[in-house]
Amino acid sequence: MGSPVTGRPVPGDGVSLREKARALDVADPLRERRGLFQLDDTVYLDGNSLGALPAHVPGRIAEVVSREWGELRIRSWEESGWWQAPERIGDRIAPLVGAAPGQVVVGDSTSVNVFKAVVAAARSRPDRPEIVVDATTFPTDGYIADSAARLTGRRIVPVEPEKLGEALGPRTAVALVNHVDFRSGRLHDLPSLTAAVQEAGAVAVWDLCHSAGALPVGLDAHGVDFAVGCTYKYLNGGPGSPAFLYVARRHQAEFDSPLPGWTSHADPFAMASGYTAADGATRGRVGTPDILSMLSLEAALEVWDGVSLDLVRAKSLALTDFFLECVESYAPAGRVTALTPLPHAERGSQVALRCAEAPSVMRELVARGVVGDLRRPDVLRFGFTPLYTGFADTERAAATLAEVLVEVAPGD
Amino acid sequence: MGSPVTGRPVPGDGVSLREKARALDVADPLRERRGLFQLDDTVYLDGNSLGALPAHVPGRIAEVVSREWGELRIRSWEESGWWQAPERIGDRIAPLVGAAPGQVVVGDSTSVNVFKAVVAAARSRPDRPEIVVDATTFPTDGYIADSAARLTGRRIVPVEPEKLGEALGPRTAVALVNHVDFRSGRLHDLPSLTAAVQEAGAVAVWDLCHSAGALPVGLDAHGVDFAVGCTYKYLNGGPGSPAFLYVARRHQAEFDSPLPGWTSHADPFAMASGYTAADGATRGRVGTPDILSMLSLEAALEVWDGVSLDLVRAKSLALTDFFLECVESYAPAGRVTALTPLPHAERGSQVALRCAEAPSVMRELVARGVVGDLRRPDVLRFGFTPLYTGFADTERAAATLAEVLVEVAPGD
Repeated sequence: MGSPVTGRPVPGDGVSLREKARALDVADPLRERRGLFQLDDTVYLDGNSLGALPAHVPGRIAEVVSREWGELRIRSWEESGWWQAPERIGDRIAPLVGAAPGQVVVGDSTSVNVFKAVVAAARSRPDRPEIVVDATTFPTDGYIADSAARLTGRRIVPVEPEKLGEALGPRTAVALVNHVDFRSGRLHDLPSLTAAVQEAGAVAVWDLCHSAGALPVGLDAHGVDFAVGCTYKYLNGGPGSPAFLYVARRHQAEFDSPLPGWTSHADPFAMASGYTAADGATRGRVGTPDILSMLSLEAALEVWDGVSLDLVRAKSLALTDFFLECVESYAPAGRVTALTPLPHAERGSQVALRCAEAPSVMRELVARGVVGDLRRPDVLRFGFTPLYTGFADTERAAATLAEVLVEVAPGD
Repeated sequence: MGSPVTGRPVPGDGVSLREKARALDVADPLRERRGLFQLDDTVYLDGNSLGALPAHVPGRIAEVVSREWGELRIRSWEESGWWQAPERIGDRIAPLVGAAPGQVVVGDSTSVNVFKAVVAAARSRPDRPEIVVDATTFPTDGYIADSAARLTGRRIVPVEPEKLGEALGPRTAVALVNHVDFRSGRLHDLPSLTAAVQEAGAVAVWDLCHSAGALPVGLDAHGVDFAVGCTYKYLNGGPGSPAFLYVARRHQAEFDSPLPGWTSHADPFAMASGYTAADGATRGRVGTPDILSMLSLEAALEVWDGVSLDLVRAKSLALTDFFLECVESYAPAGRVTALTPLPHAERGSQVALRCAEAPSVMRELVARGVVGDLRRPDVLRFGFTPLYTGFADTERAAATLAEVLVEVAPGD
C-alpha cells in the first residue's frame, strides 16, 4: 500500500529518520554556509517568501546609513558608487540566473518589472494581438499583464503552462510564464517552453521569483528573451528588496520601455527635455534607486560567493525528498496530500501540502517554531533554502507537523 | 547702482553680515531642530537633492534589520506593521502637504508615481486628447508623461507654467506641473493654476518634489486632484527613499491605475486571478513595499513632530534672502546672477545662480566644505533646509563662494 501523502511506497529500512538526517547533514557540502546567517531555534521554511538575514548585513547597512548617507551625503552617489548600483548588483545576480554581464538591472518591484518586460515585448511584435499568460501565475503578473494588454491594445489568453503549446500561434506576441508555481511548487520546463514560444515567433518573458537562487536557470543557455525576478526570497535581499529585470543582449537595442525614467537616459545629468535611451541594461532603469534596500541586497549576495548552483539544486531536491519521506512516515493518514510534483524535473524548492485544516495547522506550527506559510484556503507551503536549511531541521518540521495534525481535529 | 547679482540696491547699514547672521540664528525658533541631525563642519546646501541624516535613524534601521528582519522574519509583515507601512507613512506625510488622512500612499519612485497619476488622470477624461506638461519640468516627468500619452493615445502639449492658461482648453485632459522648478527654484502658483486647469475641465497633477517639506502646499485647501513627490530631499528619508502619491478622496473610487499590482488588490492574500481594486489610497500601491527604505523614511519623519510649516517657510525665505544679500555684498561683480526669482511668492527654498564657470566653482566650493550642486552647464544650485541650516552657515557659504570666484578665473 502506498503512502497517503505521495502515493509512493513507504520505506522501512530500519534506520530512524533522525539518524538519517544527521548523516545527511554531515555529508552536506553546503553545511558551512549556514553560519553566514542569523538563525535561531526556529525551523524557518519560509525563505521562499522572505529569506533569512545574512549575519554581516546589519554591519554593512550601518555603514551605508552612518557613513555613506550621514557623512558623505550627496557625494556618495559618486564616491560610494550609489549611481551604478542597479547595474553592478544586476551583474552580481547574473551568474545566479545564467546570464552574462550587462543584461540584468536591479530596481523597482517585480510587478513594475513585469510591466516593463511585457509592454516592451509586445511592442517588439507590433502585428500580433495576443499576450499569453500563465493562468496559474502569482496574481500580480496576471493583473499587470492585463494592464499591459489594455494599454497596448492586446488581448490576454490565459493558459496553464502544461498546455502552453495549444495557445501559441501566429497571433501570439508574448508569453509570460512562471518558472516555478508559487502555490504548488511545480517547476516548468523553461528550455522547451522558451523554444516553443520562439518557434511561434513570439517573445518569452519568464518570472523567476521562485527559481532565482533555488536552482540553475540558464537564461543565456536557453535563449530566454526577457525575465524578471525578486530578490527577497532565495536571494535574501531583505523585505521588499528591489527586483531584477533581464533583457537579453540581442533585444537591448530595441527595448522600448513604458517607464523611461530619467536614470535610463543616455546622459541623465544633461537634464535634457528630450528622451534618449541609454544602451544596455541601463535602459531598464526608471527613477532614483532606493539605495538602502539595494545595498542591503548587494551585501546579502556575498553569501553566494563560491557556491555552485548545481550543489544548491542537488541539496534542494534532497531536502524536499527527505521532507516528503518524513511526512509520509510521521503524519497521520489522510490528512495531507502533496501538491508538489514528485518527479525532480517538475519540482522547485518548496513542498506544498494540501490540508483541509491548513489555517489552524499553520498557526500551530508557527507557535511551535516551525515557520512555513499558508496559501488560502487549504495549502501549507514549506520552502527549502539550501544555504541555511539542514536535514535535521527538515526532520523536525515533519515531526512537528505530524504532532500538530494529531492535535488539530479534522474540520478544525 | 544696483547689485550685479539681483539688481537690488546694495545695503550698507554698518552691521557686518557675520554679526547679523549670529543675531538671526539666536532669534530662530527652529534652531534646536538642528540637533536632531547628524551634521559636521560642512555647510550642506544640497538637502534639496539628498536630505541630511536624522541622528536617530541609524538606531531605528539597525532595529528593523536585526530584530524585525533578522529575528521575526516573515512575522514582521504583521507583527511589525510592515504591510501597512505605505498607508501609515502616507498619513504621516499628509499633514506636511496639507492633506487629510487616507489620501497619500508611499511607494515606488517619483517617476513611477507620475506614470500612475497621469494615466489615471487621462483615463478620467476619456474624450480629451491632450496632456499639457510643464516644459521646464524635471525631465523625468516629461519623459514619463510622453510614455503615458503614447500608451493612452494622447498628445503632449508642452508649455511654460506662466503660460499654462494659453494651453488649456476643452481638449485638455490633464496638466502636469511642478510646484517648484528644480533648476531655477521658481515657485509656481498652485492655487491659481489648479483653478485654471479645473476651470478648463481638466485634471491637475502636481509634482511636489521641491516643495514637500519646504513650504506649505495645501493640497486639500486648494482642491488639487493628484500629486506626487519625493521624500529624500526636504523630507530626509534617505537616498532613493520611496516617493508618495496623493489621490484626492473624491477621485479615489474612479482611480484606474495602470500598475494594478497585487498589493493594491481589495483582498491581496486571496491571490485571486481576477483583479479587484482596494478602496482609498491603497489603490495607488503596486508591488511588495521596500521596507528598509520605507521605515528609514518613517523614522526620519519624526523630525517634523510639532513643526509649523509656516515657520519653516518664513525661515526658508529669510535664509534665501540673507544668502542673496551676502552674495551681493561679497561676490566680485559680474560673475554670478540670480536665476531664482526675488519676489517671495515666486521663490521655493533654493537659490540658483548662473555662473559661466559653474563647474569649476562648484568643484572648488565642495573642496572647501560648502556643498551645493551643479546643474549643467552653468547653474550653481544651493538648497536651504530650514530644519538644519542656519544663518551662520549661509554667511559662510556666500563668503566661500566669493573667495572661490576670486580665485577661479573667468572662463575657467
